[in-house]
Amino acid sequence: MPQNRTIRFGVIGCADIARKVSRAISLAPNALIAAVGSRSLDKAKLFAEANGFPDGAKLYGSYEAVLDDPDIDAVYVPLPTSLHVRWAVAAAQKKKHVLLEKPVALNALEFDEIIEACESNGVQFMDGTMWVHHPRTTVVKDFLSDEHRFGELKSIHTCFTIGADADFLKNNIRVKPDLDALGSLGDAGWYCVRAILLAANYELPKTVLASREPVLNEAGVIMAAGASLYWEDGKVATFYCSFLSNLTMDITAIGTKGTLHVHDFIIPYQEKEASFYTSTESKFDELVTKWDPQPSKHTVNTDLPQDALMVTEFSRLVGEIKFNNSKPEKKWPTVSRKTQMILDAVKASIDRCFEPVQIQE
Amino acid sequence: MPQNRTIRFGVIGCADIARKVSRAISLAPNALIAAVGSRSLDKAKLFAEANGFPDGAKLYGSYEAVLDDPDIDAVYVPLPTSLHVRWAVAAAQKKKHVLLEKPVALNALEFDEIIEACESNGVQFMDGTMWVHHPRTTVVKDFLSDEHRFGELKSIHTCFTIGADADFLKNNIRVKPDLDALGSLGDAGWYCVRAILLAANYELPKTVLASREPVLNEAGVIMAAGASLYWEDGKVATFYCSFLSNLTMDITAIGTKGTLHVHDFIIPYQEKEASFYTSTESKFDELVTKWDPQPSKHTVNTDLPQDALMVTEFSRLVGEIKFNNSKPEKKWPTVSRKTQMILDAVKASIDRCFEPVQIQE
Repeated sequence: MPQNRTIRFGVIGCADIARKVSRAISLAPNALIAAVGSRSLDKAKLFAEANGFPDGAKLYGSYEAVLDDPDIDAVYVPLPTSLHVRWAVAAAQKKKHVLLEKPVALNALEFDEIIEACESNGVQFMDGTMWVHHPRTTVVKDFLSDEHRFGELKSIHTCFTIGADADFLKNNIRVKPDLDALGSLGDAGWYCVRAILLAANYELPKTVLASREPVLNEAGVIMAAGASLYWEDGKVATFYCSFLSNLTMDITAIGTKGTLHVHDFIIPYQEKEASFYTSTESKFDELVTKWDPQPSKHTVNTDLPQDALMVTEFSRLVGEIKFNNSKPEKKWPTVSRKTQMILDAVKASIDRCFEPVQIQE
Repeated sequence: MPQNRTIRFGVIGCADIARKVSRAISLAPNALIAAVGSRSLDKAKLFAEANGFPDGAKLYGSYEAVLDDPDIDAVYVPLPTSLHVRWAVAAAQKKKHVLLEKPVALNALEFDEIIEACESNGVQFMDGTMWVHHPRTTVVKDFLSDEHRFGELKSIHTCFTIGADADFLKNNIRVKPDLDALGSLGDAGWYCVRAILLAANYELPKTVLASREPVLNEAGVIMAAGASLYWEDGKVATFYCSFLSNLTMDITAIGTKGTLHVHDFIIPYQEKEASFYTSTESKFDELVTKWDPQPSKHTVNTDLPQDALMVTEFSRLVGEIKFNNSKPEKKWPTVSRKTQMILDAVKASIDRCFEPVQIQE
């Protein structure tokens, strides 16, 4: 039985990712799947059955019906990016808290409409970036913030590449200009940029320069891209994202005193444990024949998967608002917006034939 | 006792790296340290004593004397880069085979004088890049060449950063404009570029673009730099090199079907074994909660360290020339020249305010 303070979720749209997040809502101790809405009632029914929805869950043949349901506290929005502004704003206006898939919008200006709607309606916003909720990320961030073990960040490289199959490359919403116009930059690059921001303590770079050979599909949607980011203090970041290469996801962050390697930062190799590698003040022996000390491996366990931890944290914030009259936590929309701004700058640099683009807050 | 076909080495200059290569010459089964020359006889004596030279080794108070010694087959040249062209050419003219430290020259044009001297005198040239002689490199290259396990190379990122101390940053030859004018680009970037070339099957990129914020010291020597490299077929490479960050050396190569990670490619963590990680057609499980398959670790053992294997291979080639009338192996100067050409292009891009530079063979 759900506790009194359980947050009741409605899911609008039956995307693949909604299956995973529905499971996460079920796993989160303070959340409950209470409704799903699709453009067709049949699809909603099938989705609920296939994903083991609880008996009481309501099934709707439209997104609006979910937003109109007074029993729903929060909505999870897995719709294509081009629909985000419409449905996230509509949800906020109906006083539903918003858990929104990434990229949060087609651009930061559009995202500002979502933020404004959430703020003026007093609802919590969070984007669906799961890995930041893994307890490993906290331990990694502690290392990156440690002046003795890591020092000052000098350079960071991140990548996320996905070996998409022919069907995906032809039919997936992420390759369609009217649905997810940012393509792999919005889908995969989002995570790369978020990891860079985390390491840079969420300070925006001053300049962004797109890599000179992005791969576009016939419709002009980005299939592979990269960029370099430059900060006032000399920090440099590079990232690479693609739908056209074998699955790979790395963070390599190098500081004055330490180095971090993560190879599965978005989806850990295994669900209940996740590792990373650090070294501090690495040296060679006298004749440069070996390392002393060698890097060390760290493993962090978690009972709940990172997606359920995301839902738990979101629901906790919603509960604070609903039951304790707290204000929404601004950290989450702020970080979403910074991530989106950098994607926008990469896109602008591509559109301007690889000119550097200045970032202004 | 040395075998009849043992190659007799003279070392000219007593740099730190010469200690390691002297040990390598001692370890190589087909090589012998036969002489060392320094600008002062005392220094040569001290060096020979400190590095356990064999009793018969000759000690000279000049580099010329080593080149004039008819018992010497080959010289190892660890001198500062600005002296390479003079002494490598002089050695070749005296019919000594040349094992030359990297970067091979201040630029490719200068290096061409060395190649020309080696070719016209029929002597073998090889640069001092040790890691390519490690048996791990062969296994790594096999993976990268495998169309089923790796597919087509799409992107590669390499880095080599060294946490140099205050004394190095003030006094080392690698920070002096009149000695090693290419700084960390020539010293550390050399390896990054070499790894990229290996993965790209030694095909030169068409365009090179320097990263926008290299760090220069007061004398204008590069302390940290990066670049992106672009090939006709859409392959992209990035690298980062620095004297100002914690020791880190990575290859991350991503192909259409596979991924390679190496974290100690220049100096393996341990002298007698070296590892790398590969994955092929990595996927998530159905709900994207874990990887299947996960990457696998591969370890390659070696009895002789990579530096001794370098000397062994060089001596083998010299022996083929000396005893079997073979021609010098052109592969080695060719790869050295390509590496140098890319360094030149990065430097040119920095000098031209980060304009892309076309590479022409």
